[in-house]
Amino acid sequence: MPLPSLRRALALALMLSACSSDTSPQATATGGAALQDLMKARNLSEDDVKAALKTFTPTGRLDEYYLFGSGGHSGQVVVVGVPSMRILKYIAVFTPEPWQGYGFDDQTKAVLAGGRRHGKDLTWADTHHPALSEMAGDYDGKFLFIGDKANARMAVIDLADFTTKQIVTSHVIESDHGAAFVTPNTDYVIEVTQYPAPLGGVYADISTFKEKYRGGAIFWRFDREKGRLDPERSFMLEFPPYVQDLADAGKLASDGYAFFNSINTELAYGGNAEGRPPMESGMSQNDMDYLHVVNWRLAEKLVADGKAKTIAGMKVLPLEVSAAEGVLFFVPEPKSPHGVDVTPDGQDIVVGGKLDTHGTVYSFAKIKALIDQKKFDGKDPYGVPLLAFKDAIRGQVDLGLGPLHTQFDDQGFAYTSLFLESACAKWSLKDLKVVEKIPSSYNIGHISAAEGDTVSPDGRYLMMMNKWALDRFAPVGPLLPQNFQLVDLTTNPMQLLYDLPIPLGEPHYAQMIKADKLKPEAIYKPVGSDPIQGGLAKNAVEGGKERIERRDDGVHVFMTAIRSHFTPDIIRVKQGDTIHLHITNLEQADDATHGFALDSYNINLSLEPGEHSDVTFKADSAGVFPMYCTEFCSALHLEMAGYFLVEPQVAALDTPTPEPTPAPAPAPTPNP
Amino acid sequence: MPLPSLRRALALALMLSACSSDTSPQATATGGAALQDLMKARNLSEDDVKAALKTFTPTGRLDEYYLFGSGGHSGQVVVVGVPSMRILKYIAVFTPEPWQGYGFDDQTKAVLAGGRRHGKDLTWADTHHPALSEMAGDYDGKFLFIGDKANARMAVIDLADFTTKQIVTSHVIESDHGAAFVTPNTDYVIEVTQYPAPLGGVYADISTFKEKYRGGAIFWRFDREKGRLDPERSFMLEFPPYVQDLADAGKLASDGYAFFNSINTELAYGGNAEGRPPMESGMSQNDMDYLHVVNWRLAEKLVADGKAKTIAGMKVLPLEVSAAEGVLFFVPEPKSPHGVDVTPDGQDIVVGGKLDTHGTVYSFAKIKALIDQKKFDGKDPYGVPLLAFKDAIRGQVDLGLGPLHTQFDDQGFAYTSLFLESACAKWSLKDLKVVEKIPSSYNIGHISAAEGDTVSPDGRYLMMMNKWALDRFAPVGPLLPQNFQLVDLTTNPMQLLYDLPIPLGEPHYAQMIKADKLKPEAIYKPVGSDPIQGGLAKNAVEGGKERIERRDDGVHVFMTAIRSHFTPDIIRVKQGDTIHLHITNLEQADDATHGFALDSYNINLSLEPGEHSDVTFKADSAGVFPMYCTEFCSALHLEMAGYFLVEPQVAALDTPTPEPTPAPAPAPTPNP
Repeated sequence: MPLPSLRRALALALMLSACSSDTSPQATATGGAALQDLMKARNLSEDDVKAALKTFTPTGRLDEYYLFGSGGHSGQVVVVGVPSMRILKYIAVFTPEPWQGYGFDDQTKAVLAGGRRHGKDLTWADTHHPALSEMAGDYDGKFLFIGDKANARMAVIDLADFTTKQIVTSHVIESDHGAAFVTPNTDYVIEVTQYPAPLGGVYADISTFKEKYRGGAIFWRFDREKGRLDPERSFMLEFPPYVQDLADAGKLASDGYAFFNSINTELAYGGNAEGRPPMESGMSQNDMDYLHVVNWRLAEKLVADGKAKTIAGMKVLPLEVSAAEGVLFFVPEPKSPHGVDVTPDGQDIVVGGKLDTHGTVYSFAKIKALIDQKKFDGKDPYGVPLLAFKDAIRGQVDLGLGPLHTQFDDQGFAYTSLFLESACAKWSLKDLKVVEKIPSSYNIGHISAAEGDTVSPDGRYLMMMNKWALDRFAPVGPLLPQNFQLVDLTTNPMQLLYDLPIPLGEPHYAQMIKADKLKPEAIYKPVGSDPIQGGLAKNAVEGGKERIERRDDGVHVFMTAIRSHFTPDIIRVKQGDTIHLHITNLEQADDATHGFALDSYNINLSLEPGEHSDVTFKADSAGVFPMYCTEFCSALHLEMAGYFLVEPQVAALDTPTPEPTPAPAPAPTPNP
Repeated sequence: MPLPSLRRALALALMLSACSSDTSPQATATGGAALQDLMKARNLSEDDVKAALKTFTPTGRLDEYYLFGSGGHSGQVVVVGVPSMRILKYIAVFTPEPWQGYGFDDQTKAVLAGGRRHGKDLTWADTHHPALSEMAGDYDGKFLFIGDKANARMAVIDLADFTTKQIVTSHVIESDHGAAFVTPNTDYVIEVTQYPAPLGGVYADISTFKEKYRGGAIFWRFDREKGRLDPERSFMLEFPPYVQDLADAGKLASDGYAFFNSINTELAYGGNAEGRPPMESGMSQNDMDYLHVVNWRLAEKLVADGKAKTIAGMKVLPLEVSAAEGVLFFVPEPKSPHGVDVTPDGQDIVVGGKLDTHGTVYSFAKIKALIDQKKFDGKDPYGVPLLAFKDAIRGQVDLGLGPLHTQFDDQGFAYTSLFLESACAKWSLKDLKVVEKIPSSYNIGHISAAEGDTVSPDGRYLMMMNKWALDRFAPVGPLLPQNFQLVDLTTNPMQLLYDLPIPLGEPHYAQMIKADKLKPEAIYKPVGSDPIQGGLAKNAVEGGKERIERRDDGVHVFMTAIRSHFTPDIIRVKQGDTIHLHITNLEQADDATHGFALDSYNINLSLEPGEHSDVTFKADSAGVFPMYCTEFCSALHLEMAGYFLVEPQVAALDTPTPEPTPAPAPAPTPNP
């Protein structure tokens, strides 16, 4: 179908003075000419004009979709408005972030502490797969979950305030990849291991890989009412050390099941300085690896029945139990599989094999029938029943080079990213034929369609998430942004609309949700709210009741913030005092956020309207330390300041030493 | 001037089948109709269409300008492409950032260590004013400087690789605000204090504010060849405790001078819990504060002549010397002044008073004449000569409510942000008359014009940097983005083109530079480069020479990274060993970055093509720790992995305790 000739239409508009009389020829000519001049000046094609008009979002106009993308090794989540392609927010998740005060007050430090491993604070993560909470297989806009591949952790973000509320980790595993994926009612959030290791953090040499290293899938129980994961009610399935990869939960027809793929039936574990092949070749020998089919409802029952053993505090269903009791089955999948995606109706499971040119479409009905009939094709070396490839698939679709991930629309089409081809294929789920391809720039990874992981995708938009961006944007040195490309799915052919550089982090996956499903709060209520624990903070401060109290455990400062001052604005303490700041932002106007910075003490809080924060620290350095509001909160924001005065332990007044030597000598205490 | 009627032009295009014959009526009608349908479907006005076409930047097309914005209390710098308004990169400056590996390897840890204060690591900053390096008063595209208001620090970013190379701090002061501003040839980078404090980090009670608290302006000497600030050749001017604010360096006519304003001739210091007024009112009593006029070339000479005293390692020119020797002069400025901006020709200095409705235009020629004639209007309480307001100004322009900052174009116009009015005024420098205003959404702070701080501004674009964004974007909880609004300066009236939410940090100021002035590198050369020190890294590793060496100071791992493996990919150490990883990325292809993550050890490096990194840490936790490339570097990126095996000090094999108790018992060492 030929593209409509916009340019010609505009050119004709310029000639209208000779033909039409119902409008001012002058104005019309200027209008068309202005547009033509703009197109010429900026070298825009007709398609460019359409793309511009499909994405440009005038001042004050809101986007129709939110895209929640992982931030890769930034450890954060990135929120993009669609179709405007404006980044609306980076949400701090695993990495401390001072603008949000995240990791700087006691409340958020406690959230981060939930993710400690081996007693260590971790100040980064490799966030991979965000998952929106679902009800009946549809995004409900309430929560977002995201896993940390590097350190086997899971975070919960509440979309009421776009804030991370919880980080959990289980020391039973060392890393994950397929995390997070939710079951259709968000009963569980799934985290599947990436690199196998001995379970429970014990040491075993790599030569015992086959015998002692294991993978597994944690099913984190989500308590919707509390908005938190419940480790006590969670469990894990033990897997062979096949390097599990991605995951998806069954839905509708396949509800109660979950699917995982794997890439290392070779059981390679590297050793390229020890005479063995590197992993990349060691793991790519076999033509088939194993799709893991898991009956998680049965697993849940077996765990409840006491069939699990506890490792590092996690209830683990042993591999032999899963294999014997009908929880776990393997189906061969070609080759070096990556993405595994359940179709919206739950009837099929689509797998992309990185080194295969096909998408393989498994039929859940066939798989279920084989399981029900116990029609197995032998067992794997760990005793897990195998289903025959040919009996389990509905067919294969010839996609192209490097198929990875698949998304779906509302018209019966699937979309699969082709990494090696730098393209995305649109294909018919019904007859497994490619309809069309659209190129990407470059090295496409995941793709995300509007409501694309639900039982009812929207179609409309597809985001191609490209890993490389060379030559796409004004250069910014050796480390380049990634490139999100927005595609219009409503046209035939698909139209590339927009290239968005991702300026921080390397997003892996994203989910796109209708904006009207989210109802975020603009302020915290009541005044003095604890955003992490919820409700009124224990140490919330009322206006007029500000005070400084010296107690056994140190100096407690009960402070309020309101445009444009802190009360009290002078704090006098002694060097060595433990300080407990309790600060309530009394504002109840939208966007009336105050920051609280304390110079040289590494403290910056972000106090949203109505929010209360506590921060505990030791006044170990003597001196005069300005404190101030870091937000441009009013015309007199520079005046929203005060002083934190730390009197030295020895009388060092006027002595020009920045760090008076601590000494036991008493000093006069003007603490009010 | 009426807007051209684009919509009418398009409507007419639809009627052309009856009038024209040189094109397919079908196609033409479709073209016009498609555009009209789009405008209708997305409710776009004719101005919206123009704005869309002026900003939309098709795939692969590069921006014409870079905007470098501070990241506020995120501690980073944000880089925006203009006119596309796409954020191209967040540059890690003061806050550790794992995607960039910043603060995770020895090299960047050393950069951050330069910013320690009172022996403390600081993991955030309040970045305020970025300053591009200049030659002859024009941006040269080589370096970017930025100050940390909270902790009185200054950073140097090299625009060859968009990487922070140096952080310096002087313990002589506690906070800054007017930082960074450069002299016309970047001889010096200026950092002026915000909140006064006793110089040198000593303690003095706030009641001695007038006598013992001081402000000051540090002139950091920049060594262009080394690309580093040189603290040894830097100096500071001591100022009274007037709460200095913004700064600008003279240029052309006023070269050799610098200008600072202040907001607290009242000498208020808060104490709202002690019976004194809060700072916001205490500092807003006087109708006039003091513009500080500094002859920095003379100051430089006096310092060279030994007139400075050394405080906390910084050469400080005492206030009485500056006052006596003709370095420092005060001119009254109305009221609660904020921005101070030198005109492109260097002849005038424009000051905005937050609580005044005028912009005040000082004439440097008049100021200079008064100084040369020693025509003083008395002295301030600290002995600094005063110049009479009426004798020093060229005039005032009636701007509106809350004038803050002024920028300039190439047509003789100035632009001043009006915070309280949420607007930007365009006014004529020649006759000091407002020509036009454009509203902003909302609470406009700084503005930035294309090449707007140089001796030859470009005009074309102006960025309005708004602090509040309520109702502008799809909601993201109580903490909202800021809003950058791009304005077209080439039209009459000015046209608002684009609203950009800033998703991380609260930018204060920005500078906009022609993109073709920057020539960033795409890869590091030679292979094995140390990006901070420059040149070949001491421990660079050649391909084929990878090895693990046990030395007296621990285990040295000489590793390379290339698609898609690390060599060696297995590292065996003993619990308690000190580990020195030396990793060279052998890639020399653009964008072929590798990450290096080590699970649970809080290590993530970003190795750009050709880059070498070192990381030193203690293997204090025993166990099996996967390590892998965090970049999606190839189709087999998941296979770019290995294992870090930490054998416990006691033989705890298979004992299910994640943290074996350290013990002196020897263990077999399979270290290769």
